[in-house]
Order: sequence, then structure tokens, then C-alpha cells
Amino acid sequence: MQPTLDHPPPSLDHLPQSLVEDETLAAAGALRVAWARSNMPLLAGLRAEFERERPLAGRRIGMCLHVESKTGVLVEVLRAGGAEVVWTGSPATTDDGVAAALAGAAGIRVYARRRDSLADHHEHVERVLASGPDLLLDNGADLIAGCLRREDSRVTAATEETTSGANRLREELAGAVPFPVVVINDSPLKLLFENQHGIGPAVVDGFLRATNSLIAATTFAVVGYGSCGRSLARTLRALNAAVLVVERDPVRALEAAFEGMRVRDLAGALREAHVVITVTGRPGIVRREQLLGLRDGAMLANVGHFGTEIDVPALEALAVRRTEVSPHVTEYQLESGRTVRLLARGEMLNLSAASGHQIQIMDLGFALQAHSLRELARTPQGFVPGLQPVPAAIDRQLATEMLGTLPTVELGT
Amino acid sequence: MQPTLDHPPPSLDHLPQSLVEDETLAAAGALRVAWARSNMPLLAGLRAEFERERPLAGRRIGMCLHVESKTGVLVEVLRAGGAEVVWTGSPATTDDGVAAALAGAAGIRVYARRRDSLADHHEHVERVLASGPDLLLDNGADLIAGCLRREDSRVTAATEETTSGANRLREELAGAVPFPVVVINDSPLKLLFENQHGIGPAVVDGFLRATNSLIAATTFAVVGYGSCGRSLARTLRALNAAVLVVERDPVRALEAAFEGMRVRDLAGALREAHVVITVTGRPGIVRREQLLGLRDGAMLANVGHFGTEIDVPALEALAVRRTEVSPHVTEYQLESGRTVRLLARGEMLNLSAASGHQIQIMDLGFALQAHSLRELARTPQGFVPGLQPVPAAIDRQLATEMLGTLPTVELGT
Amino acid sequence: MQPTLDHPPPSLDHLPQSLVEDETLAAAGALRVAWARSNMPLLAGLRAEFERERPLAGRRIGMCLHVESKTGVLVEVLRAGGAEVVWTGSPATTDDGVAAALAGAAGIRVYARRRDSLADHHEHVERVLASGPDLLLDNGADLIAGCLRREDSRVTAATEETTSGANRLREELAGAVPFPVVVINDSPLKLLFENQHGIGPAVVDGFLRATNSLIAATTFAVVGYGSCGRSLARTLRALNAAVLVVERDPVRALEAAFEGMRVRDLAGALREAHVVITVTGRPGIVRREQLLGLRDGAMLANVGHFGTEIDVPALEALAVRRTEVSPHVTEYQLESGRTVRLLARGEMLNLSAASGHQIQIMDLGFALQAHSLRELARTPQGFVPGLQPVPAAIDRQLATEMLGTLPTVELGT
Amino acid sequence: MQPTLDHPPPSLDHLPQSLVEDETLAAAGALRVAWARSNMPLLAGLRAEFERERPLAGRRIGMCLHVESKTGVLVEVLRAGGAEVVWTGSPATTDDGVAAALAGAAGIRVYARRRDSLADHHEHVERVLASGPDLLLDNGADLIAGCLRREDSRVTAATEETTSGANRLREELAGAVPFPVVVINDSPLKLLFENQHGIGPAVVDGFLRATNSLIAATTFAVVGYGSCGRSLARTLRALNAAVLVVERDPVRALEAAFEGMRVRDLAGALREAHVVITVTGRPGIVRREQLLGLRDGAMLANVGHFGTEIDVPALEALAVRRTEVSPHVTEYQLESGRTVRLLARGEMLNLSAASGHQIQIMDLGFALQAHSLRELARTPQGFVPGLQPVPAAIDRQLATEMLGTLPTVELGT
Repeated sequence: MQPTLDHPPPSLDHLPQSLVEDETLAAAGALRVAWARSNMPLLAGLRAEFERERPLAGRRIGMCLHVESKTGVLVEVLRAGGAEVVWTGSPATTDDGVAAALAGAAGIRVYARRRDSLADHHEHVERVLASGPDLLLDNGADLIAGCLRREDSRVTAATEETTSGANRLREELAGAVPFPVVVINDSPLKLLFENQHGIGPAVVDGFLRATNSLIAATTFAVVGYGSCGRSLARTLRALNAAVLVVERDPVRALEAAFEGMRVRDLAGALREAHVVITVTGRPGIVRREQLLGLRDGAMLANVGHFGTEIDVPALEALAVRRTEVSPHVTEYQLESGRTVRLLARGEMLNLSAASGHQIQIMDLGFALQAHSLRELARTPQGFVPGLQPVPAAIDRQLATEMLGTLPTVELGT
Repeated sequence: MQPTLDHPPPSLDHLPQSLVEDETLAAAGALRVAWARSNMPLLAGLRAEFERERPLAGRRIGMCLHVESKTGVLVEVLRAGGAEVVWTGSPATTDDGVAAALAGAAGIRVYARRRDSLADHHEHVERVLASGPDLLLDNGADLIAGCLRREDSRVTAATEETTSGANRLREELAGAVPFPVVVINDSPLKLLFENQHGIGPAVVDGFLRATNSLIAATTFAVVGYGSCGRSLARTLRALNAAVLVVERDPVRALEAAFEGMRVRDLAGALREAHVVITVTGRPGIVRREQLLGLRDGAMLANVGHFGTEIDVPALEALAVRRTEVSPHVTEYQLESGRTVRLLARGEMLNLSAASGHQIQIMDLGFALQAHSLRELARTPQGFVPGLQPVPAAIDRQLATEMLGTLPTVELGT
Repeated sequence: MQPTLDHPPPSLDHLPQSLVEDETLAAAGALRVAWARSNMPLLAGLRAEFERERPLAGRRIGMCLHVESKTGVLVEVLRAGGAEVVWTGSPATTDDGVAAALAGAAGIRVYARRRDSLADHHEHVERVLASGPDLLLDNGADLIAGCLRREDSRVTAATEETTSGANRLREELAGAVPFPVVVINDSPLKLLFENQHGIGPAVVDGFLRATNSLIAATTFAVVGYGSCGRSLARTLRALNAAVLVVERDPVRALEAAFEGMRVRDLAGALREAHVVITVTGRPGIVRREQLLGLRDGAMLANVGHFGTEIDVPALEALAVRRTEVSPHVTEYQLESGRTVRLLARGEMLNLSAASGHQIQIMDLGFALQAHSLRELARTPQGFVPGLQPVPAAIDRQLATEMLGTLPTVELGT
Repeated sequence: MQPTLDHPPPSLDHLPQSLVEDETLAAAGALRVAWARSNMPLLAGLRAEFERERPLAGRRIGMCLHVESKTGVLVEVLRAGGAEVVWTGSPATTDDGVAAALAGAAGIRVYARRRDSLADHHEHVERVLASGPDLLLDNGADLIAGCLRREDSRVTAATEETTSGANRLREELAGAVPFPVVVINDSPLKLLFENQHGIGPAVVDGFLRATNSLIAATTFAVVGYGSCGRSLARTLRALNAAVLVVERDPVRALEAAFEGMRVRDLAGALREAHVVITVTGRPGIVRREQLLGLRDGAMLANVGHFGTEIDVPALEALAVRRTEVSPHVTEYQLESGRTVRLLARGEMLNLSAASGHQIQIMDLGFALQAHSLRELARTPQGFVPGLQPVPAAIDRQLATEMLGTLPTVELGT
């Protein structure tokens, strides 16, 4: 039976007001949120509508999403729509200043610290669920899975940010979710812009910050030619790099060749490249054997979702010497005398050494979130239980709005 | 009931040997076929297999496809596989030399002349059907529709080259086809390479041949940002044009903006552009009203499938003077004193003023044809009646083979 | 002593009115001139000024420049300025229709036929000189050298179109020229736009017309990375080719590498490339030894000024079979069984298989000519005897005017 | 009379050993030098030669150049060649860790602290001169001008890094320098690679670090289309920005138009652009009047050599509110209600918000320095008193060496 909302949200008195690292960081965090806010025109427009319409009045949103400046703006918009927000993030990605800034606002509770352990995180998730939310904004399906285990769940609908969360709902939780879940990442709008336009420049930013090294005339091996790898390869080539593409799927590999890239098998690419970047979405791509095939002085970085595409423990085991040569570069000397320079410890270079996607790209993604939550609250009868994509009308509306923010676009009235 | 092949193909004695314009053109046509052949490595490889395996021995293929050098190579391959081919083309696109060259070969009959009227064409289609083919290679579903009307049809399977033919089968002929039809154009391989890589350079070729006019520093309006329009816009920009994109779908329009294009509504684009190129796939895009909004001296061309995207009769009606200034440029003077220069009479610029897709692109598309026909003949049980895409294994195999022909690709064994 | 103009130009009665192939070609030639004229806004503006000012009234211009549509427009402008023009071209490049069209105009004499032999050409040059010109517009310094040998020379000034003509004046004729010669090709404006923006697209046009072959995914070796080679390499890369650069000068080679090109020595490039294009400006680049190193099926073309960069006689000598496979492709089979496909017989591909530079590029170059002739006629005291560049003020003025013709440029008043 | 070196360098006992901020920063500084060193193959090769040949044995080099990691590697190489180095930098650009690391090495004295005032700097310059150098490596001609005022000067030759220093020598010090001065920045190699390939990516790096803002679909006005502005405009366009170019010189403006850029006057560009970047090399480009013409929310940055291209005091005077919204962004609210976001306080964005040129670019520039000093020491007779460019043979040799370090280059032996 689908839960209904005929009684008010439970009291929050049994929960801590918030759990953040240091309240004195709030001012600095507020500045970062302000900067993000001033570059997110879609959310700004939505905030004005939300203040007028109050579509989320009386709703309590349980939220699990990285606590940083851009998500902070999303939370503000949900709050402007009338919602209470009980929020946790992910360990290691929390911006403690932003957490402090938001924790002080009325109607928002934040449970998140950068130094949280996985155990801390699980406790935060339980706190969010214990608040009795009726809407969930989830990232990886932890909240959704958790609410299914609770007798007292009031959840009527949810959004799920990621594809990996959606996969979990399709497999582990197949058929078990009695309420609608809108999967944000399946939106063509999000796929198109985050992958195609967000990745390339963000990785270039991370590479330059980490290394101050030349891109032109440098040979990069891009391992994986999905939408992210393609964005990266095109961006590098536009900056005059020589790009080698490694891709097992022959249709994609042919696509790379038709874009003027050279295509190599992994061993050939490793022998030749100055810089190797994995972006396959699969673990264990560069293992012991591959590490031994790198040229002397090669740089090695990862952009794939998991920090396991490069087998860092294997690299550590092979090394006879290890030096942190700069904040994002670790140099390993192998027995052969060759050196390998690992960037950002094999974590996602665009996030670890730079600031991830450009703000406006996230504006688009978070506007999809806010729109979807509004529709789920306003017209629940328009959704079916279980997974579904963002309604196409929202995609079209947001694309139209974003076109309206761009000075390169002029459309008559 | 699905027809079977338990009796031999009927005699062809009642049909003319071939109907071509001029047999003395055969030598020149053979040269053009030879040039195409020497640049089609996929078909070359397939020919060798076909000669060995003879997968089409005893089969009679009824074929409707433009009669020109590249299709000529395809026919040779089918013939090498043991098939008889009875072939007609489309009016206006027939290369009379190629027709003459192929008409002289054993096992091939050709009914096609460049000057054929539509009535002539229908007679040729009837001739092909009267030959009693058991396989069809169709283009626009004329043969398929025709065989359904005949009592004596021996057809067991077909391929359909185009999306518009597939649409006809889905709509007008829905449920009526008792044998499998493989739609070539739905193959990701074909969509990807013909549209994404074939269109742009072919249009540039046509534009330069027709006009000898500058592309750099010139403002082009590309009307329609589907896969063909995108290819064209990217190619023009790569050649330093300033590109305006006109596109009604907001998601596609946003995609164009993210590629650095300026986006305009049609009226705004027409006011500003030096050169306007339609590529929408819909008729009546540039009509009387739009023609009056063009800047003085504007060039106007079409790349969309139908010659009706630009309303040429309206342009003729508006003009006070009309001059054929070069083989592919007609200049119209309007009452206002402005001139409009229409390229290739509004027909597809890439085909009319240039030679269409590059040979290697067609090699890929025709290899899909030949592979599909082989599979339909060899393992009919692998297919269901009605429309279906090219089996994914063929896409993968051809991509792998084409990778093998490219010197920019090195894959270990 | 610098000649003066105190007596009128001599009678032309002793010279034939004109010598052209076929006067009935005039109408077709006039159309081609009209098309060029309508795309040459700089010359159009200058023609209006010339009609008003008549800066060349009473002057007789002896002219040696390819007789084709764009030069035809230049001649019209000179005529509008009051000059008589006595014109010859170069053998093999004459457009007989344009010759016929111009030959019929008052004040213009044309001595040029496509089929002219070198001996015919020398006779034409003598006819031009015998007309007693007082200004020369020269191409290769034949007229200038010729007038120095004549007692009756009335020449007071000249322009020289080419760098090779300028070199001849610097070396063979050093110190011998008593009048000013403005070298058009040394203008930064001309170098910049003809080489940097004219070459690449024109070669692509020629390649596609000649071969209908794929550029994307194809490996091109560009031999020579001067301004023309760089333009070509960049254009090919923009169209998704894989480009190898061969260049002996290490600074230029490094420049190519920094643009993301791969750099190879000639032997390595020949082993790898699908298509080899010479653009060095030096003869004998691809000789017997190099021809033997080409891969099977390689295409070979030249864009350099001289048709001798590829040693075609050596190729003929090596071949066991030679086939004209299409109007611009000759296929040679070597003893080894390999084939080599020579494009445009080793002549400049952009001129032989396409229409050379885009019209607007020539508009710029010919406006430099007309401006320079006006200044030479109007303010001879502003020039010194011997070689000199186009006055910088003309470069600036023409750049400003061309900016005014471009819709991508908006400059306030 | 040119000074000779017939007596040994004077004692340094009267000078402090070194003057650096904090010796405990040495370890961190050494790491940064090590990272730079491992990416500077040209200097690495030269170091090996210098150790073998000791071309600078017994020489004392007075040096004025930014004290940071890449210059640190240059100093090490000079030291390996046998020289003593007495070094000062520029206020505000000193890396105190690198200063500390180098100050501890034998044969090197460093006088430089990030917090140095201009008065401190002048004292350091005097210390360097008081050390009695016989070679100078100068930056802005302060050392050269200073030594001319001293009776006891032992200087026999110098290099000057910058164009502005060269200009000072050409004007203020014209004819006054009795020893050869090699101007590094006039080398085609340095101009080509620093400006053409160093600037664009470094500015992109600075922009992304400072703002995390989108480049694609964003309109950038690049004010100034010299070699630096062109590099920036091309790089932004390659990343899918829409670029407006502002340039007064019509030939350069036309060049921009031919690269597909839109060209605007300054007022028009300011009205339209999201982001305005000055790179003209002249002060006072964006003044009060221009600031009032910016669109709401516009970002404003400078890449030109002087921090005065944007009139920051005028902006401060116009503002009713000023907020430091992030480390490199100051937001000004104007009376009109509009905001302007100034990046990096109007200082060079590539240096202030990023790490300047890529290491390998500086490797090239500093190799020119080391080579030139070696030649000046070894074959002084090859030089004349006064300014001169780097000998062409050094350019060629370094280009050849750098080609040898690039895996995209394969040249046979």
C-alpha cells in the first residue's frame, strides 16, 4: 500500500539539531554557496517560483547528497518551496564550511563532516530516516533501501541521482519499492551535458593544477571511449594533444578513429603515452602487468567513477621508492629504474585536483532534481510505483530555460 | 505462410535482357566502378568470402537501388556469392555508364536510364518483380509493396535501405509482410558514419564546387540540428565559418549552444546569414515569407532528403529575373532589388553538386547489405517475419573489419 | 633616367585586335565573370571609385596574368579607371570563354588561348610589349624583363604578382630596373589570407572532387610545413584526418608537433600514409627511391608551385601498367604489384581538380593590385626605382574594407 | 673598452650569505624544484653537458629572475656548469620555499622574499651588483642599468629575458652598453611557443580554478589579438566558447574574422560578453566608461603584462559594495544594481590564479638562457656590443632537441 500523508510529520525533538565539524566555518562556507548561487540561473528562477507557489509546504525531505556549495543552493531552493530538509552527505566529500553555513538555517538539519567514517555515515543515514521524511532525494539508494526496512516509513516518492543507485533499485530492490522513484541521471539532458561538456574541461583543469605540464604535443592515452572518455579525448585534442584511444567495443573504437584519433590496444597505448587516463567505469584496468609496461616518467590518472580502475596497491607493491612530489602527484620508482607518476592517488582527477563539473552544469542537474520533486509532490498521480525517468516535459522546459540564459542564443518571441 | 524455395527460379525469357541508355558508355562506367571497387576494402574482403562460400548460389535477388559506381560494386559482390541480380534504380540518379557496364555482365540484368520518367520506373519495378526473385534488396519499399500484390511471389526475405521505406512498412504495410525485412538504416553503424562523418565533408565539397566561395569568415545558417545538421555545422565551424543554428527542439538547440554555435530563430538567422542550408527532413521550411527575409545576395541550399525544404516554386513566383549564373547556381532577382542565389535548384547539394558520401562510407553501408542478405539466405530461422534491425553481430564484425583497414589503428593480436 | 609620359601611347593598329580561341564562347565566359564579380565586394567598391576618379585615364597597362573569371573582374576595374589593357595569360590556364568575353570589350585586347604553346606565349608577350604600355601588371617578371630589352619602352612602373617573379628581379635583374615595381605577394595581407585560408579548403575541394574518398580516419602526410603546408595540415585535421608532417626545418617541425601533429621523416611518412601531399616549393621531393617506399594503394598529390615536386617521369618509368581511372586519378602498377594513384598528374591539385582559391580571397589580392596601380599612376613620387612592398596604408585600408563586408564583424562608427 | 677577466672575482665576504624568509620551508621548496626538474628534459640534457664541460667555471653570474621552481632548475644548471650565482627575484612572485631550498646550496646566494617591498628589491639588486658578477642574467634591465653606473663593473656580457627590458636598452640606454646583450624574448622559438601555446591553456586553467564556471556556450570577449590574444581566443573556441574579438589593427582584426571569430568594437563586446579578458599590453583599456557598459554579472580579467589594463581604482570608486566571493573573485556592486566580478584583482590571471606557463614551455625558454650564457662565456668574439638576438643556431639546436623528447616525433637517423 502506498503511504499517504494524512498526518503531520513527526516531531524532530529526538534528533540532534545538526552535526557539523565547526560552526565557525559558516561564514566562509556561506561565501562559497553565494558564489555558486550567483552562477545558477535555473535554480534562481525556480526559487522565485517556489517562493510564490510553496509546492513543498509541509513536506519533509530526507536527503543524501554530497554536502558542498552547489548542493547547498539546491537545498535553499527546496527550503524556499516550503520543505524541511534533513540532510546527510558522503564521507570525504563534505565541505565543512558549507555544512556549517546550511546547518544554521531554519528548517534545515545537516549531519555531515568531512572526516566521517563509514560507520558515522550509516548513523547519519539512520538519523535522516528517523526524521520521518515523506520525500527522499537519494544518491546511491541508501535512503530508499533504508526506508523499506522501517515500519514507520512515510515516504511517498523519491528521486535518485545516480545510475549506480538506479541499478541497485533494478537489481537488489527490484519490485520492492511501493512509491515512485525518478532517476535523474537517465535524463538525456543530464547525460548530454554532464558527460559531453562537463568532463573534458574539468579533467584538463585537474591535470593542469596537479602537474603544470604541457598538453600540446603530449601523447595522452584515453582508456575507454564512452561518453566521458569521448569528451575527454575531444577536449585534449582541441588543446593540441596527440590522443590514443583504447576501447574494446569495435563500434566505439571505429567512432574514435573517425574522429581522427589513433586507436591502440592497451599494451600499445601504455608503451607510447606520456599520460594515461582511465575512464572505463570498470575496476582493475591498469594492473601489475600494465604498470610494468608504462614508459619511464609516465603519468597515470583516473577519471572513472571508481578509484579502482588503477590498481594502486599493486603500484605500491612494485615500487622501491615513493615520493609525494606535489599535492596531487605521487612518484613511484620501480625496480627497473623507471618512474611512474600517479595523479590524485588514482581518485577522480576532476574532483580531487579540481572542482568537478562547472557550476552551470550542476545547475541543470539540480534543476532536474527540484522540478522532479515538485512534480512528485504536486501530481503524484502522474507517476507509477518504481523507477521512471524524469518526465520529458521537464527536460524540454529546462532546456528552454537554459537557452534563455545564454547570450549566444536569440529566439524571437 | 512463408514461401519456400523448393522449386527453381522461373525462366527470364519473357523479360528483356537489359534496358540501358547506351551500351557504348560501358567502358567509362567500368572505370568508375573500378575506382570505387579499389576503395571499398570491406566489400573486397566479402567478395573473396562469397566466391569461396557461394552463400547466394541459386538465389535470385530483385534489387531497387540507385545505379551508380558504388552500388555497382555491391552488385558484383552479390554476383560473386552466386546470386542472379535483376536491378532497377531511381529516375534521375542513374549513371548510364555504370548501367551499361553492369548490364553486360553474366547473371545481371539492369533496367535503368537517367532519363526515365516515373512511369518508366514503375515498369522497371514490375519487370524486377516479374523475374520471380526470392530475395529483395529494396529502397523505399516499392519492391516489397509490389510483391505483396502478386500471387506468384517467391520472396523469402528482404532488406530495406532507407528509413522512409521502413516507415512505410511500419505504417502503410503494417502486419502485411510475411517474410523478414532487415532495415539497414537503423544500424547504429550506418547512422553514425553516414550522418556524422559523411554529410559534412560532402556538403562542403558541393558548396565549393558550386560556388568557389569562401567558407571562413562567412556566416552559415544551418536549419535543423539533427545528426546531419550537426555534422554539417561542426564541419563548417572546423573550416572557420561562423555558424548559426536554427532548431525547434530545445534539447538539440541547447546541444548546439554547448558546442559553441549561436542559436537563432529562423527569421533572425535568415536576416543575418550569407548562406542558408536546410537540413530538417521536413518540407516547406523556407517559404515565401522566409524568402522575403533573406539578406541581399544570400545563397540558399538544401541537404535534407526532400527537394521541397525550400519552396522553389514560391521563389520562381517572387522573382522578376532569373539567371543561371553557373551550372549549380541560379540567381533570382526579387522585386525589392535583392538577389537570392539558389544552389543546385534546391535539390540535395551533396549529391547534385558533388558525389555524395565518400566511397568508404558507402563501403560500410553496402557491406551491411551484403552481410544481411547472406544471413537471410543462410540462416533464415534466425529472423522473424516483419521489420528488424541488422543483427548486432554484423555491426560488430564490420566495425572490427573496418578498424583493420585503417592505418591509424593498431590492435595487437 | 626614369621614362616620362609626355607623349600619348602609340597606335595599336599594327597589332591584331585580339587572339582568342572561339568568340562564340563569350556568353558562357561572361556568365563566369559575372559570378565572380558578384562575389568580389572589394573590387566592386573600387570600380565605383575608379569610375568617378578615372585614375588610370590615358594609361596603357601591359598585363600578364592567368586569363580566368576573377582576373577578368580585375581587368574590368582597371578599364573602369580609364586604362587600356593589353593582356596575355599563361598557357594551359586560360579560360577560353573568359578570353572571348573580355576580348569583345572596348579598350581591352586579349592574346591568350588554352592550347597555346610556350612559343605562342612568347609571341603574346612580345605583342603586349609592342603595344607600348606605360604600366605593367606582371606575373613571373616576363614583361618586366622584356621591356628592359626594348629601346622604345614607355614603362614607368609595374606590379609583380608572384614571389618567384620578385626573386627573378632580385637576382637575374638586380639593379637593372629603372622604375618602381610593387611586389604584391609580399603584402602581409596576401600572404596571410591566400596561404593561411585559401590553400586548405581548396586542396580539400580538389581531393574530394578527384577521389570522392574519405578524409576522416585517413592518414595524410603533408610534406612541407610552410604557411601553405600548415594551412593544409590544419584543415585536414579539422576534418578528422590523422596528419603526419614532414619538415626539415626543426623550428617549423616543432611548431607542427605543438599543434598536435605527428612529425616524421619522409621515409617514415611514406611508409605509413594513405595520402601523400607535397607542398615544399622545391623540385624532386618524391623521387624513384621514395616512390618505391609508398604503401600499396597510396595516393600522391602535389600542391607546391611547381609540378616537379613529384618526379612523374620516374613514376612512369617504374610502372608496369598505367590506367586513367578517373579524370584526375592515374593509377600506376609497379613491378612489386603495389599500386600508386597519382592525382592531377602531379600538377597543383587545388587548381587542376578544383577552382583554386575562393573568389573572395582573390578579391583581396586583386584589390591590392588595383590599389597599387592607382598609387603608381597617381603619386609616382611616392615610390623608388626597383622592388618594394605594397604600401602599408593600402594593406590597412583593404583590411578595413573587407571587415566592412563581413556580417560577423560589427564595428561602431 | 670591453672589460676583461684577467683577475679573479672579488670576495663575497662583505655580503650576507643569503636573505630568505624561512629556512624551514626548504624541504617543500626542494620538492617543487624536483617536480619541475623532472619535466625539463632540455635543461636535464644541458646539465649533463655542463657537468662535463664546465663552460662557466670561474664565472660569477648576477641574476635577476622570478624565484620559483622552474628558475630554480635553471640556477642548478648554471651551477653545474661551474658558475657561482648571486640571485634576486621580483617582489610578490618569490616562492619562499624555493628561495630557501636554493639558498642552502653551495655556490648560490639568494636575496628574495615574497613580502619584499620595492625598496627591499632595490637593495637586493645592489647586493647582486656588489658581488662583482662578470655575467648578468637580467629581467627588465635593472642589473644592466645598475652595472653601468658602477666604476668597478666586471660585466663582460648579459642576457635579457624580456621585451620590455630590451625596449629599455634600445631607448633609455641606447648606445650605452659596452658589452653584448642577448635578448631571449626575441627568439622565434620563445615567441612561438610561449605566446602561441603557453598562454591559452594557462588562462583556461586560471579561469577554471578561479570560477569553476562554464566555458562552453559562454561568450568571451578577448580584447587584443596579438599573439597572446590569438592563443587565448583559439583555445577558448576549441573549448566551445563563443568568442568576440576586439582589435584596433584592421589586419589583425581581419585575421580574427578569418578564423571564424566575431569581431566587435570594445563597447559592443562589453555589452554582449559574459567574460571580458584584456590582453593588449597597454594600460587603461577598461576604464570608468567601459566598466559602466558591462552586462550584469560580467566577469572581468586581465592577461596582459601590466595589471593596469583594467582600471581597478575606477572600479573601486564606482562600487557601492565589494565582496571577496572566493580567493580569486571580487564582486563589485555598482550603483545601477549591476554586479561586476573581477578575477585575480586585475593581475595576470594565468599567473595569479594558476601556475603560469607549462613547465616544458619554460624548459625551452630557460634552455635558451643557458645556451646563450655558455656561448657568451665561451666565444665572446662571436658577439658584438649591445643588443642582439639569440644566435639562430641555438634556436635550431633546441628545436631539434625538443623534437627528440616528444613521442609524437619519429625521425630516422
